[in-house]
Amino acid sequence: MARFDIYVTYKKGIFDPPGATAERALQNLGYAEVSSVKIGKFIQLEVADGTGVERVAEMCGKLLANPVIEDYRIEPVGEA
Amino acid sequence: MARFDIYVTYKKGIFDPPGATAERALQNLGYAEVSSVKIGKFIQLEVADGTGVERVAEMCGKLLANPVIEDYRIEPVGEA
Repeated sequence: MARFDIYVTYKKGIFDPPGATAERALQNLGYAEVSSVKIGKFIQLEVADGTGVERVAEMCGKLLANPVIEDYRIEPVGEA
Repeated sequence: MARFDIYVTYKKGIFDPPGATAERALQNLGYAEVSSVKIGKFIQLEVADGTGVERVAEMCGKLLANPVIEDYRIEPVGEA
């Protein structure tokens, strides 16, 4: 089994509603030191051995991320 | 500005509906090599300099993660 970690984040300039909500909520809870919260996705993928990173990128482009508004970064984390 | 990356994942044994949905959808799209997809959160936090990791853990416990069903990992990523 091969494993990949995928980090999906909003592109620069795209509004991140959950992040903005968490940011304000933390400040309201008294965490005045918080200046920015961005919330993206952390995807842990397990695939058959020999699956290449291009194939995983294809999955990201088709389903796991929305390429119009999101960026993604793929990190191979070895066999599991 | 200090920065922390936070990885929020479901605890072992907790059902992950978005992950299960993505897993089935990828297989239906023809990605038969996919055996498991888990979807958690990737949070990028910017806080005032000098904010300690304990303080960030407190924010996770109170708001950013649900400690009943989720685990979190905090990684300091230095000044921004």
